[in-house]
Amino acid sequence: MKHTIYALVENKPGVLARISGLFSARGFNIDSLAVGETHDPTMSRMTIIVDAKDDRILEQIKKQLHKLIDVVSVQDLTKKDFFERELVLIKLKTAGITRQKLTARLRKFPAEVLSFDKQTAVIQAVGAKAQVSDLLDAVGGFGVTELVRTGRIAIAK
Amino acid sequence: MKHTIYALVENKPGVLARISGLFSARGFNIDSLAVGETHDPTMSRMTIIVDAKDDRILEQIKKQLHKLIDVVSVQDLTKKDFFERELVLIKLKTAGITRQKLTARLRKFPAEVLSFDKQTAVIQAVGAKAQVSDLLDAVGGFGVTELVRTGRIAIAK
Repeated sequence: MKHTIYALVENKPGVLARISGLFSARGFNIDSLAVGETHDPTMSRMTIIVDAKDDRILEQIKKQLHKLIDVVSVQDLTKKDFFERELVLIKLKTAGITRQKLTARLRKFPAEVLSFDKQTAVIQAVGAKAQVSDLLDAVGGFGVTELVRTGRIAIAK
Repeated sequence: MKHTIYALVENKPGVLARISGLFSARGFNIDSLAVGETHDPTMSRMTIIVDAKDDRILEQIKKQLHKLIDVVSVQDLTKKDFFERELVLIKLKTAGITRQKLTARLRKFPAEVLSFDKQTAVIQAVGAKAQVSDLLDAVGGFGVTELVRTGRIAIAK
């Protein structure tokens, strides 16, 4: 089961290494992780999405996270009501398509074209997981040469 | 100086811990880090923004990154021409404001209101660093109760 864990941590060297080490020591692969500043410059917010086959071990990890001195708070949003969003940047081949055709293909997605020339186009899109997957399916035929994703972030409603 | 480093890595447990450990062992604080899937499910893409006072040590870290068996490629985008974007979710107090007033305040930003009720509103915004800073200044007066950022991602033009 995928869990969305949300931690407020001190913005100091080594915190990320300690946290990611906790997960990897238990063999958990992190599906996505985003760390960014908060409105308090001494603090960072991490959103970690982890696929935990064993809920008991996940509980242990959450307890270990709480114990880390740099970790201020830990929440598991999995069973709560929250907004989840991801940002993706996609580079496509433009051979044989026009900007108009690409824009038409993107119409039903929360996406925009950042650049378009004879070789490549760059698209920006923001959405929940399913929207981003659908967008990737829709543009897959154009030939994706590069894809960069932020990892998902979440905020409780 | 802020450096934007862009690494393609294998999607396996422990890779993130090894990479963040490399930076923290040298006392570098990571300003923002985003890890997400790519179009190849066995690979992840990391965008790391690090403030390196000493360019010589940064060069050493880049060499160490290249040597890690799970790291497929490393690029320093700092001197290249690239799109850089960040996604933020902001929760605000709505006491004394209307949805219309909030929407008007957001008009010149790449932002949208995801929810609005008597207590709180949630806003989503995407932009380059300066746009996100300006937006945070513009809504600061409303009373930000929560701020979640993805960290910045980049794609070469």
